[in-house]
Amino acid sequence: MVKDQMDQISKGLEDVNLKWTRLTSIDGEKGILKYGGYRVEDIIKGGALVEEVQYLFLNGELPNKKQLADFQGKIREGYSVPKYVIDAVTNLPPESDSVALQMNAFAALAATMKFKWDKQTDRDVAAKVIGNMAAITAAIYRHTSGMQPLELEPGNSYAESFLKATFGKKPSQQEIDAMNTALILYMDHEVPASTTAGLVVVSTLADIYSGIVGSLAALKGPLHGGAAEAAIAQFAQIGDPAKVEDWFNQNIVTGKSRLMGFGHRVYKTYDPRAKIFRSIATDLVKNNTEAEKMYKIALKVEELGIKNMASKGIYPNTDFFSGIVYMSLGFPLKNDIYTALFALSRVTGWMAHFIEYVEEQHRLIRPRAVYTGPEERSFVPIDRR
Amino acid sequence: MVKDQMDQISKGLEDVNLKWTRLTSIDGEKGILKYGGYRVEDIIKGGALVEEVQYLFLNGELPNKKQLADFQGKIREGYSVPKYVIDAVTNLPPESDSVALQMNAFAALAATMKFKWDKQTDRDVAAKVIGNMAAITAAIYRHTSGMQPLELEPGNSYAESFLKATFGKKPSQQEIDAMNTALILYMDHEVPASTTAGLVVVSTLADIYSGIVGSLAALKGPLHGGAAEAAIAQFAQIGDPAKVEDWFNQNIVTGKSRLMGFGHRVYKTYDPRAKIFRSIATDLVKNNTEAEKMYKIALKVEELGIKNMASKGIYPNTDFFSGIVYMSLGFPLKNDIYTALFALSRVTGWMAHFIEYVEEQHRLIRPRAVYTGPEERSFVPIDRR
Repeated sequence: MVKDQMDQISKGLEDVNLKWTRLTSIDGEKGILKYGGYRVEDIIKGGALVEEVQYLFLNGELPNKKQLADFQGKIREGYSVPKYVIDAVTNLPPESDSVALQMNAFAALAATMKFKWDKQTDRDVAAKVIGNMAAITAAIYRHTSGMQPLELEPGNSYAESFLKATFGKKPSQQEIDAMNTALILYMDHEVPASTTAGLVVVSTLADIYSGIVGSLAALKGPLHGGAAEAAIAQFAQIGDPAKVEDWFNQNIVTGKSRLMGFGHRVYKTYDPRAKIFRSIATDLVKNNTEAEKMYKIALKVEELGIKNMASKGIYPNTDFFSGIVYMSLGFPLKNDIYTALFALSRVTGWMAHFIEYVEEQHRLIRPRAVYTGPEERSFVPIDRR
Repeated sequence: MVKDQMDQISKGLEDVNLKWTRLTSIDGEKGILKYGGYRVEDIIKGGALVEEVQYLFLNGELPNKKQLADFQGKIREGYSVPKYVIDAVTNLPPESDSVALQMNAFAALAATMKFKWDKQTDRDVAAKVIGNMAAITAAIYRHTSGMQPLELEPGNSYAESFLKATFGKKPSQQEIDAMNTALILYMDHEVPASTTAGLVVVSTLADIYSGIVGSLAALKGPLHGGAAEAAIAQFAQIGDPAKVEDWFNQNIVTGKSRLMGFGHRVYKTYDPRAKIFRSIATDLVKNNTEAEKMYKIALKVEELGIKNMASKGIYPNTDFFSGIVYMSLGFPLKNDIYTALFALSRVTGWMAHFIEYVEEQHRLIRPRAVYTGPEERSFVPIDRR
C-alpha cells in the first residue's frame, strides 16, 4: 500500500475526538482524574457512597439526602430481574467466562425489554440497570462457583447488597468500604474501547441494553478489561516475593515482555486510581494469606517497574493493584470474574456517555475505509476457474 | 460549549478513515459496489454461490471447485452447534427480538469457546461461524414462530440448507436463488456502524464471537439494520397502491417525515443492490399475495420518491426492496427477523474485516473526548449538601 493511503488512516482513532463530555476529565501528564470536576481522591476521602457518584454521572450534580434515597429506591427496583435473565446465565456451563455471561444476561434484556430513548425516562432506566447489573453479577459469581444465585436484598448500600448476595453472608464494614471504593474508581474513564463500542451501538438508536452488550464485548478483551486479571495472574506466576528480581530481569529487562498493569495510553505518570487501590490493599490483604502474598510480590514488581520504566512515562495503572483488592474480598482468580467486577462499576459510565450522546450530540457513527484491494476485474464463473 | 471545542469533534466519525481494506469498494457518486474488485452485479449475473463470495472475502480470491468443496465442508462443521447455544435462544420468550436472540447465541459461544487470534486458524473458525450462523438463525425463526428448531442438513448449498431448516420443506430453485442473491448483496458494505462496533471490540483482542455480538448490537438499531423492516412496515402502513400518492404528499412532502429505504450516507445515486433486489422481487412476489401488494406499493413510492428527491442525491437504498424479497420467501414481518437475515449475510463481512484488522493493522481503538463539564470543584460530603 502506498504511504499516502496509510497517512489517511486514523490508526486506533488516537487523537480523534469522538464526542464531548461533562463526565470525566483526565490530565494524563499530572495524573489527575476528575468526575464532573471532583477529583477522584477527594470523592473517596469525602466518604461518598458509590450511589452518590452514580447519581453525579447521570444527573451532573451530587445528590442531597432525599435525592439519594429516591435514587437508591430506583436502583433497588432493578435488584429483581426476570427469571429468564438469570436462566440465561445458569443455563451455560459453570466454567464460562463471566463477562460473556453478563453479555448473555443483557442480550436477554435486549431481546425482551421495551425501550425507547427519551429524556423523561432514560435516567430511570439507567438506575434500574445499575440494580440489574448487581443482581446479574452476583448470580454469575455464584453460578461459576457452583452455587445457586441468591435474591438481592435492599441492605444499607449498593456495595453491601452486592457483597451479601454474592457471598451469602453479611460483609464487614471494611469489605463494604473496599468494594464501594473499587466501584467508584472503575466508574468511568472517558472513551476507552468499551465505551466507544457501546457508543457506536447506540448511535444506531439501538436500545440501552444492546449498548451495554457492545461495551461488555469490548471490555472482555485482554488489552482492555482483562488487564486486572492479567496483572494478578502475573504475580501468581512469579509466586514468591523473593523471586521477583530474577523474574523481572529475565522477562521484562532481557525478555522484553510486557509488564502487565503498567503503562496507559493516556497517563504518563502514576495513575491516581492505582494509588488508592494500593492504599486500600495495604490493610485489606491482612484478611487473606494468598492476597497478602500477591501484594508483597506486587510491591516489589512496582519498585523495579518504576525504576526501569518511569523515565519512559510508564507507571502502574489502575489494574495493577485492583485484582489484589478483589482477591482480598474473596473473589477467586478464575472465570474472568475481576473483569466482570470492572463492568459492574463501569456500566454507569457507559450509560452516562450513551445518554449524553443520544440526547445532545447524536449522529450515526459511520467512518470510512481506504480501499487498497485489486482494481476492477471481470468475474469468471467457477467452471472456468 | 465554545465553537472551537465543537470543531475539534469528528461527529459520527464522518470522513475519518478507520482502516484500510481489500474487501469492498464503493463509488457513491456512480453507484458502483465491488467485492475484491468484482462488481456485485457481475457476481450475481455470473451465478456465484454465496459460498464462493464468502470464500472471496476470507481468502482474497474466488475459489476453484476443489477449494469451494473444502470450504463448504468447513461451513458444514458449523451446522451443528452446542445444545446450550440453541437453548440460549429457546429459553427466551418467543416474542423476543430476533437480532437480540442472535446476540444471545453468540454470547453463549463467547462464554465457552476457546479462541485466540491466529493466522493459521482464523479462517477455519470463520467458516465454521458461517455455518453456526445459519443454524442459529433458522432456530430463531422457528422459535419465534412457535416451532421446534430443526437440524441443518448439508444439502446442495448454504442457501438451500438454511431455507430447508427454516421452513422444514425443500425450497424451490427460485427460492434458493433469491436467498442466495440476498445473502451476497448484504455481505459487506465497508465500515458501517455494525462493522465499526465489532472492530472496536476485536481491537481489544477479544474473541471473534464477542466481535460478532458487538456488531449485532449495532445492527439492531433502527438507523442501521432495522431499515429493511422499516421500509416494508411503511408499505404495510400505506396498505394499498391507490393510497400511495395521498400518503406521500401528506407524510413526505408536507409532513417532512423520513422516507424509509431512501437515502444513504455514501450513495448519492441509485444503490446497485436495490436494483438487483427490485429485479428479483418482480417474479418472486407472484408466489405471495401480500408481498405482491407490498411490491406494487413500493414501485409507486419509488416513483414519487425519485421524482421528489433525486435532485438532492436521495435514491432507493438496498433496504427498499429487500423486505419484499424476504416476505415472498415466507418470512413474516415480525420479531425483527429481516434484520436477523441481514446479519446472517453480513457476519462474513464482519469477520473478514476483523481478520484484516487484527492480522495486519492491529491497534487498540481508543479515541478521546473533549471535556466541557465544570471546572475543578471541592467535594462537599452529603451531610452538608
